[in-house]
Amino acid sequence: MGHVAASTRERILEEGLALMSQSGLSGVTLGALADQVGMSKSGLFAHFRSKEDVQIGLLQYMAGFATARVVAPTMKVEEGLPRLKALILNWFGWTRRAGLPGGCPVAAGMFEFDDIHGPVRNKILEMEAEWRDLLSGLVQQAMDRGHLGPDLDRDQFVWELCAIYLGHHAAYRFLRSADAERRAQRAYEALLDRAAHVSVKKKTKRTATKRVKKERL
Amino acid sequence: MGHVAASTRERILEEGLALMSQSGLSGVTLGALADQVGMSKSGLFAHFRSKEDVQIGLLQYMAGFATARVVAPTMKVEEGLPRLKALILNWFGWTRRAGLPGGCPVAAGMFEFDDIHGPVRNKILEMEAEWRDLLSGLVQQAMDRGHLGPDLDRDQFVWELCAIYLGHHAAYRFLRSADAERRAQRAYEALLDRAAHVSVKKKTKRTATKRVKKERL
Repeated sequence: MGHVAASTRERILEEGLALMSQSGLSGVTLGALADQVGMSKSGLFAHFRSKEDVQIGLLQYMAGFATARVVAPTMKVEEGLPRLKALILNWFGWTRRAGLPGGCPVAAGMFEFDDIHGPVRNKILEMEAEWRDLLSGLVQQAMDRGHLGPDLDRDQFVWELCAIYLGHHAAYRFLRSADAERRAQRAYEALLDRAAHVSVKKKTKRTATKRVKKERL
Repeated sequence: MGHVAASTRERILEEGLALMSQSGLSGVTLGALADQVGMSKSGLFAHFRSKEDVQIGLLQYMAGFATARVVAPTMKVEEGLPRLKALILNWFGWTRRAGLPGGCPVAAGMFEFDDIHGPVRNKILEMEAEWRDLLSGLVQQAMDRGHLGPDLDRDQFVWELCAIYLGHHAAYRFLRSADAERRAQRAYEALLDRAAHVSVKKKTKRTATKRVKKERL
């Protein structure tokens, strides 16, 4: 992020995104952001009306920032499984490659805002839903092209992929495990392997579904 | 938690655990805790020296609280896969069944404290390591009894199980998805299915490992 920011608002958002990545959404107070940007709190008020307004602005800014770095480059990749794989490669650990000092604000936000109702939670919900829809669309393309089994439960696939992402985030960012990438890669390869052969395993899957009904979590 | 608390410290910890479950570790300020317990901040200082001291005390209290509710009941279950399954059933969604108003403080803490160094982060690290060790031990027992394949990568199994737990936590607590339990159950059944037949699939697994080396996350 070394280029000269186009405007003060842009500069606040750039600095704020770094702060949000490292300190979480609740760490983005007007005071902490003013310190980071090197301006007064009253100066900030010219651009944002409240802490919530800053948080939502930063999440919106992050969406564009991440789309340009994680999603856009994959649009050149062949549709179907190649594009899905390219997106996953760009997604896991994306904040580090994008030059952010901390983790993924949406992943953290899902744990920070699980019980805090209001517009910030709603914004995270909207972003997470959009992300899962994007993944679903790519999985569907891979199914349509015969790269993934025709009987694949697409929503289950996306659900498990998002779980692996959270597991990777915790292992890589919190536990600082040296093998976080290798573990995530193996989990995701196993998920793809199941997805590619899903019609063959249909009978086994049905037996598993019966077991689900017997012993619920 | 309707019973009369044995002591003031116990009462502070009980109320604090509910607060921590709902507001996260950083939500447990001395002011918020004093309000919740109905005592003055100076009264709290008789029991805890600092916010960090309260947070660590609460995490320690949570460990005992969760062990009694999640782990202890499974010690009556037959060793091996039955005990592992019983633990997983008790673990997923444990805070709701334990009467807590929010989510799992350790799961949230792994996202809240990924970049905040100090004794609170160290305490969460220690608790997460103990938890993964406990799971590893149960997986090993299941392998020793032939319930899971002899070539199973135990650490990988535990890693994926913890990822499913985080996926379930986000789906159930944040997204409030009606199908969170069903999705987690299917993910975990698929993981068990792979683990039970791991020696049969060894060749496929090796091919997958080769792919891992080609395209790293």
